Order: sequence, then structure tokens, then C-alpha cells
Amino acid sequence: MTDIETPYRELNLSTVADFAVPFLAERPIRAQEIGDGNLNRVFRVSSSSDSVVVKQALPYLKAAGESWPLTRHRARIECEALLQHGKLAPGLVASVLHFEDPLSVLVLEDLHEYQNWRDATIAGNDLSGVAALVGQYSAAVLVGTVGAHLTGPERAEMRSRFSYSALCLVTEELIFTAPFVNAESNRYDVEITDLVTALYKDRSLRMAAAELRFNFRTRNEALLHGDLHTGSVLARPNDIRIIDPEFAFFGPVGFDPGVLLGNLAMSRLAHQAADREHAASVIDTAARDYWQAFADEAARRWSATEPWFARFLARVLADAARFAGMEMIRRIVGLAHVRDIDSLPPTARFRAQESSLAGGRALVLGGRCPSFDDLWQRATQEETFA
Amino acid sequence: MTDIETPYRELNLSTVADFAVPFLAERPIRAQEIGDGNLNRVFRVSSSSDSVVVKQALPYLKAAGESWPLTRHRARIECEALLQHGKLAPGLVASVLHFEDPLSVLVLEDLHEYQNWRDATIAGNDLSGVAALVGQYSAAVLVGTVGAHLTGPERAEMRSRFSYSALCLVTEELIFTAPFVNAESNRYDVEITDLVTALYKDRSLRMAAAELRFNFRTRNEALLHGDLHTGSVLARPNDIRIIDPEFAFFGPVGFDPGVLLGNLAMSRLAHQAADREHAASVIDTAARDYWQAFADEAARRWSATEPWFARFLARVLADAARFAGMEMIRRIVGLAHVRDIDSLPPTARFRAQESSLAGGRALVLGGRCPSFDDLWQRATQEETFA
Repeated sequence: MTDIETPYRELNLSTVADFAVPFLAERPIRAQEIGDGNLNRVFRVSSSSDSVVVKQALPYLKAAGESWPLTRHRARIECEALLQHGKLAPGLVASVLHFEDPLSVLVLEDLHEYQNWRDATIAGNDLSGVAALVGQYSAAVLVGTVGAHLTGPERAEMRSRFSYSALCLVTEELIFTAPFVNAESNRYDVEITDLVTALYKDRSLRMAAAELRFNFRTRNEALLHGDLHTGSVLARPNDIRIIDPEFAFFGPVGFDPGVLLGNLAMSRLAHQAADREHAASVIDTAARDYWQAFADEAARRWSATEPWFARFLARVLADAARFAGMEMIRRIVGLAHVRDIDSLPPTARFRAQESSLAGGRALVLGGRCPSFDDLWQRATQEETFA
Repeated sequence: MTDIETPYRELNLSTVADFAVPFLAERPIRAQEIGDGNLNRVFRVSSSSDSVVVKQALPYLKAAGESWPLTRHRARIECEALLQHGKLAPGLVASVLHFEDPLSVLVLEDLHEYQNWRDATIAGNDLSGVAALVGQYSAAVLVGTVGAHLTGPERAEMRSRFSYSALCLVTEELIFTAPFVNAESNRYDVEITDLVTALYKDRSLRMAAAELRFNFRTRNEALLHGDLHTGSVLARPNDIRIIDPEFAFFGPVGFDPGVLLGNLAMSRLAHQAADREHAASVIDTAARDYWQAFADEAARRWSATEPWFARFLARVLADAARFAGMEMIRRIVGLAHVRDIDSLPPTARFRAQESSLAGGRALVLGGRCPSFDDLWQRATQEETFA
């Protein structure tokens, strides 16, 4: 798998075709760059009869430029997480064809017949069954690796293999710190400056964010995806493949559901602000389906020797609500935004941004969240937080 | 330090004197066994002018016999924890003179002029300043290693060096599992059989214990002592040395204060049951002094960049209350008891045992504990839990 004679070099459109030769049935006839992520270069290489995806980790945070260096070790984390999650949730996770450590390159099955779920939610497409499958995936990987269900040695092994990585430090900074302290990496529309200034002055929110950062760091509960937004799901009706788990680590169970529900809530707020009622209701259904499938599948997979499932589910929901709030705030004022909102025309965009900040605050500061309905109402109420 | 030519052998009264020669000013003239713990053999070796303590880990749990094997790796954990805690709380932790890995032996300064704090509390001695010093020790080591204050690499290093060990599995079993499921290792006075039977049938308590076990496993918050009962403190007025941190691991901050307060509460209940009012009030003061000193020192050491100290302290207290409750139950029905209660005459003993079970239940099931006074009242109210 590895070749120590091969030093790291960035692949480009002309070199990636040669690289992909062993993984194609016939000689490559086309290479194109398809990634729009913040961390990697992603290529599709095609022959006349088949194609593969080649994903290479860059030694810096692409969205921030070469001034933000980032270990390429994340390619190995992504590979191991895809394999581990693929075992726990067979058929729901993208398949790895090859991993080349010195180049930090993954070769993946090409899923061109799938649509990115974020694109689908933005378009208002109702892809039946998709949200429930993502909920099943979450339950399979989270309950499948939760500390309560593993033996001591299994836990120790998994904890050390998926230990707190450089990517976790990026998450800490971008989600839990920067949005609350006027960090240089933040960016936001000048029209919402007053809202952002109020955010920076909100001491309760900054305290809550620091406490949540502590939970994120210290609750080593299960092997997370670590960045489960709608763009990490490739979808078609009744079929999904989860991608991009390079942020995988052993962390709090509520984080993945929180990030996903936060992203769905922002999509809902975008449709609402643009008066697209049908599309908004499609998202309402998706969020509920996700949580219901998660709860059902988690119950099914929960160990009979651990007699506290109801308490487990209640704390996952309460944690998810707070993490969703963090995600809804940082996607408005932090480095990385969501296209659902950024693609709106100005007036609707500002309205959705304001709602997202209000929803995020309501989730974080509104006390322990008792139910999914309460979570979803707080997230999407579209009122300015008093 | 290590000698791979030396295979493991159990030291005894005749061989320990030879072993101690290099650590004494003159030739040894006396060796005696002084330990009464559950895990190790502890010797004092004296010359005419000085003495040292030699502590050897045995390859099984001494209290349970050779049928419960236990890794000797704990001697290394103890050594590393003594060094790390000694750096954070200089002057409050026993000094290591030598560590010999193949023999799993620690040579420690002899603290014969100190009294074991458990002996002092049983005798009703009021050792001034001791409880507050233990509180300072707890704050120094817990806040000094809390995830919020360490950089990523420091945390990763400390987490891996003090990872979840075989000793943690013993704690899981003896504190969080066995006392609630009629395990073979349990032992209790036949006179309280009805109480114990009721305990085994208490589904709420078993659920809460399972959830607390999960917290114990997964909240990697700070480098704990791991077994901070009154017998782990050597004391004289205004001076302490902490000993026996072989259970040290990266766990929930509230665990150490909880175990200590649980042990003080049992001591209080013992005095109460024996109508020793003065001794009981000495313990009341000690418990309050411990918590107050912990809170003050924690505030002093808390990082100014983490604006959530009040929330941190509140959650430590709430966690401590629940862990104290676990300790108060397991010390009555589990494998390891406390002399404070076991040394009482029968009627007073059964009364103290009943109170300890009631206090433990009140702490675990009484909802989130809001204050030290509330914790102490629940723990020591001496009423049967309804």
C-alpha cells in the first residue's frame, strides 16, 4: 500500500490520470476536479467504461490558504473511519478502493449517480427515505462504538486509533472559539454587523461555548463522523453513502446529530426566508425522520445489559441541541458558511442569517432540551432572540 | 532503574531488607510488614538511623486472593502519578525514592511520623488544617490537568500515559456494577440482608449506576487520584502526604471529591450511630473545609481564558454527589468495606450501614445536587430512604 520511495507531491489534472491507471478497467480518458471542500483536492478520473474518485489531503486548510497548515495525517483517519463505519453500517458508507499513505490519497468508488444531499435540500427535492437512512447510519456507528458496549481493550484500542487529532483542534477553533471572540478567521456580510457585534458581547453565550468546547474535548463516548453536515451525504431515493469522515474522533455522541440537525435547520430557515413553503416542509419532515430513525435504530442496537436507554437518548438529544446551536452560529459568522443561506438574494439572506443566529442562541441558552419538537421549534422559530 | 536480568519475585520479610540496602544510610536492622491494603505488600525497612517504605504490587487483587489476577503495571502508574501530582501539588504528595519496574516495586520516603487520616477520623482526632490541605491537593491536580487548560499535544500525551487501565476496570466492577447485581464478590452482614435485597431490586438505582459507570468511562477530564478515600491521606496537623494513586487515570473531575466526601460521610454516620457527637461534628467541619478549600483553590488556578468557572464548579459538585453516593453504597454491600463502620458494635454498625445505604441512594437519585450543604445533608441525614 505504501511506497517510501514516493515523496509527497500535489496531484493535478495531468498527473492524477496516470495515478488512477491501476484502478480503472481501461486507460483513463478524462480527469476533472470535482471537489469544492475546504481541505482537499478531489478528482474524478474516467475511462470509457468506468471511473473512480481520487481524494488528496493538502498540507494546509484549503479554505484559509497555505497560511493555515494542517497535517495530512487526516487522510489516514478518513480511511480508517470509512472502514470502521462501513463495517458498522454496511451499504451506507462510501467504499475505499485504495489508500496511499505517502501521497495522503484515497481512491474511492465513484458515486456519480448520487446527488449531494445539500444540493438536494437546496433544490427542495424530496428524496424519499434518505433522512431516515442517515439516522440509521448515525445510530449504527454511534451506538456501535459507544463506551458502554465495548470491552476495555476494544475501547482502549479504538480510543488510541481515533484520538484527538489536529482536525479536532480545527473544529474547536472554528466552532467553539472563533465565532464568539471576533477572530480574524471570521467572515460575515457587512449588513449583519450589528448582530455580530451583539454576539461578541454576549457573555452567557461565550461561557456556554467554552463549556461545550470542554465537553467536545473530554467526552470520549463514541467514534463520531465529526463533520456530518448535509454535504457529507451522497443521496438518491432510499440509498445513501456517507463521505468525508476525516474529522472522525472519539467524542460526544450528541455531536453528529447536532451538526446534522443544525444544518437541516439552516436549510429550513433559508427556504422560509425565501417563502418556499413546500421546500421548508420537506426539511421539517427530513429532520423528524432523521431523529426518529436514529432513536429507533439506537434502541434496537442498545445493549440489554445497560438498563438506561431512555436516559441515554435524552442526553444525546440535549447535547445535540446545544451542538446544533453552535453549528448554526458559526456557519453565519465563522470561516465556513452554508450555500443554503449564502445563495439567497440579499434580503432573504440577511433574514435567514438573523434567524440562524437566533435559533442557535435559543438552542444553546434555552436550558436542557426535553424533546425533538422542542429542539426543532427553538432552531427554526424565526424570531429574534430577546 | 530497571534490570532485565531480575525476574519478578515476591519480596518477603527476609528478602526486603537486602533489597532496601541501597536506600538506607546504614545497614538494615529491621523489616516489618505495614500494609493493610487490598492490592499490595508494603514493608518498612529500618536502619539504626533511618527507614524507607517498600511497596510491591502483587499480580492479583490481595483482598480477593489469587483468583483475581491484576496487572502489576499499576506500580508504574502509581509512580508516574506520584511524580505528576507531586509537581502540581509540591509538598502534599509522598516522594518516590526509587522505582524498580521488573519487581513492580516503589521505594518511598517513610512517613512514620504521620497518621493515616482514616485512623484519625475513626479516633475522632481533629487534625487542624488537614481537610483543607486535601482540598488544595485535589484542586491543584484536577484543575492543573483539566482538559480546558492543556494544549492539544499535552492533553494527548497525558491521556495516553494515564489511559484507562486494568485498575479502572476493577473500579467499574466494584463500584458501579457488583453492588447492584448480587455479584459473588459482594459481602455484607447477614443482619442487613433485607436492605441489600431491596437494593438489588431497585431498578432506578441500577439504571443510575450504569449511567454513572458510563460517565466514569468516558469523561476524560483530568488526571485523577482514582481512590482518594481517607486512608489515602497521611496526616499530621497542617501537613499531609497523599499516597496510593495506582488507580490514577484521566477521568471525571468530580470522582475524587465524590469518593472523599463519601468516605467522610460514612465516618460521620459511624460516629452518629455510636452517639459520638463531638467526633461527628469534627467530620462535618472537615468535609466543609475540604470542599471550601477545593473551591477556593480551583478558582485561583482556573484559567482566565475559560469564562465558565461557576458552571465548572457546579458540575463538579453535582458529579461528586453522585459518585459519593456510589461509594457509600458499595462500601456497605461490595467487596471492600470501611473500618469506620465495620469496627462498630453490632447495633450501631447496622444503623450506620442502613444510613450509608440511605444516604447513597439520596445522593444518586435525588436529582442534580445544587450546593455543598445539600450534598452533605443528603449524605448524612440518617433516615431510611423512602
